Amino acid sequence: MKTRAAVAFEAKRPLEIVEVDLEGPRAGEVLIEIKATGICHTDAYTLDGLDSEGIFPSILGHEGAGVVVEVGPGVTSVEVGDHVIPLYTPECRQCKSCLSRKTNLCTSIRATQGKGLMPDGTSRFSYKGQAIAHYMGCSTFSNYTVLPEIAVAKIRKDAPFDKACYVGCGVTTGVGAVVNTAKVEPGANCVVFGLGGIGLNVIQGLKMVGADMIVGVDINDDKEEWGLRFGMTHFVNPKTVSDVVAHLVELTGGGADYTFDCTGNTVVMRQALEACHRGWGESIVIGVAEAGKEIATRPFQLVTGRVWRGSAFGGARGRTDTPKIVDWYMDGKIEIDPMITHTLPLERINEAFDLMHEGKSIRSVVVF
Amino acid sequence: MKTRAAVAFEAKRPLEIVEVDLEGPRAGEVLIEIKATGICHTDAYTLDGLDSEGIFPSILGHEGAGVVVEVGPGVTSVEVGDHVIPLYTPECRQCKSCLSRKTNLCTSIRATQGKGLMPDGTSRFSYKGQAIAHYMGCSTFSNYTVLPEIAVAKIRKDAPFDKACYVGCGVTTGVGAVVNTAKVEPGANCVVFGLGGIGLNVIQGLKMVGADMIVGVDINDDKEEWGLRFGMTHFVNPKTVSDVVAHLVELTGGGADYTFDCTGNTVVMRQALEACHRGWGESIVIGVAEAGKEIATRPFQLVTGRVWRGSAFGGARGRTDTPKIVDWYMDGKIEIDPMITHTLPLERINEAFDLMHEGKSIRSVVVF
Repeated sequence: MKTRAAVAFEAKRPLEIVEVDLEGPRAGEVLIEIKATGICHTDAYTLDGLDSEGIFPSILGHEGAGVVVEVGPGVTSVEVGDHVIPLYTPECRQCKSCLSRKTNLCTSIRATQGKGLMPDGTSRFSYKGQAIAHYMGCSTFSNYTVLPEIAVAKIRKDAPFDKACYVGCGVTTGVGAVVNTAKVEPGANCVVFGLGGIGLNVIQGLKMVGADMIVGVDINDDKEEWGLRFGMTHFVNPKTVSDVVAHLVELTGGGADYTFDCTGNTVVMRQALEACHRGWGESIVIGVAEAGKEIATRPFQLVTGRVWRGSAFGGARGRTDTPKIVDWYMDGKIEIDPMITHTLPLERINEAFDLMHEGKSIRSVVVF
Repeated sequence: MKTRAAVAFEAKRPLEIVEVDLEGPRAGEVLIEIKATGICHTDAYTLDGLDSEGIFPSILGHEGAGVVVEVGPGVTSVEVGDHVIPLYTPECRQCKSCLSRKTNLCTSIRATQGKGLMPDGTSRFSYKGQAIAHYMGCSTFSNYTVLPEIAVAKIRKDAPFDKACYVGCGVTTGVGAVVNTAKVEPGANCVVFGLGGIGLNVIQGLKMVGADMIVGVDINDDKEEWGLRFGMTHFVNPKTVSDVVAHLVELTGGGADYTFDCTGNTVVMRQALEACHRGWGESIVIGVAEAGKEIATRPFQLVTGRVWRGSAFGGARGRTDTPKIVDWYMDGKIEIDPMITHTLPLERINEAFDLMHEGKSIRSVVVF
């Protein structure tokens, strides 16, 4: 079949909207009509040529929502008409990781996904006879895409696609880090570094689970209003205090129970660890650092009880937990609508990248 | 009263055995007759002048066992005749830390303890009219010593003092890191870096809780026999492999579920983290690093599921958990006797430091 898609022919060049060829689903695969997709920093990271493992030409996008329109042989978990979210972190429920009960990082199709291929080692996309790579196993910048059955989460049909798509990455990454990774308990004092989309979702996750103190930290004062909108109780601009760690330890009465780095800055990651309470404070690294950058601290910080951990896709098992987050949204436990600052047609997708680079959007969504 | 004690009059000088003056217990304090004390690297660290916060003159020693011979006003939890282990990590059961249920690091007397004083801000020891500092709240290198009631653990009376004293630091630090900090589950694959006394106690803790693979790592081949003696299943000398992390990941089938650093070397601490299994492996820092040294890694290690934490006094609540470890010893669940390689009278205590510096002892114990 043919499908309209935004193709990244090479790094550092705008996406091109073209008709590409798409093969139908093979065994264990499903064909999805993408209805909406968010544009995430990770897409930009790849398009900007910063990811040394980036593959071109490819169809980017990994934060979508759509409808199953065809299933390949052997598919049992979804059927035509189901509403789904594509999963860049699949959930096979069979591999060592899935069976460990300790991680969401399913490894069953990691090798081929990393190469931009379907699990059988081939691509379903092509343009003028040339194969086009899949991206993060999703390629949601295409009106139609093919995914392995284990990489789609079935969600309720009354959830609007142009909001539910954000659950495919940003919402789950932030809310999930609170719920699944840190397992924050009611009454906890928490600090969130970086009030972009992920940070705001961490904040609303903290509000949902009943945290007491939700301190937002950002070098941009304009973010204060955004933080307050989603449950932040205190705002700190590090530029206005002499020692941000000491300030936060003081503010939280000895240090935070949980801190979250949503900046990707390794200096901030250290601050986030050291702002934790002696004895039990846990710091969660969410942000992705620049290649080659390292985090450091004195081991004394750990020996005296602080814990350093990380979170990928909010620790969420794709098929099991993602639908729950959609439910939370539909039940009003979390918000998505005010975070979707821009909604655009596919033809204007490059504008969404510009808005993000200029810091003018929390999340832009493309609708098909 | 007078008591015989080994006094550290200044750094880098042998201890001197003299008669010192000891005031009796004040309110909330107890007088202990020390029957035996281990000599630990931390005592040597202070005596060698490496601890910038070391205080002289002082009476070192923090790994003892003895008998309560007098109690001050208001003491209710122990009585004359009780067998006890002095606790450098007390357990007041009242402070924010004790009440958090998340840490063993009681903070109730931390400030005065760090200054070499009893909680009321004075010392009970003096020599020729000059105050002598307490050490780590214990000063077990004295035949008699005074401690706060909250800093003694009551143990069973049939436990031999010259073995039970080791529970006051080394045994609890190692076994406790497994049981309390890492909470290792049966079947886990584990790696222990550094097979000194702490490492061997980690190993026997892992054996006790039913770990599958217990890999010992040491640059000294002579340690292999010691490791095997306590339950190690595999030995790796890093000097014999090109990449110790890759080797351990291979050996453990993808990385360890838990690793323990018992070296204090920050390069090894990084290896210990990176030898953990993607998705869930946890690395526990036990060793104390040189002043100023830092640990580092790529944040990707955390984001992909590895956890970095530390352990102090094995995460054991002094009065609650230490007596249990003595019980485990008496029940044969763990061993202590073969680790006590040397037993000496107080007069020969400086020999014990020499043995340790020369790497000739696992643990030397002084008996009074």
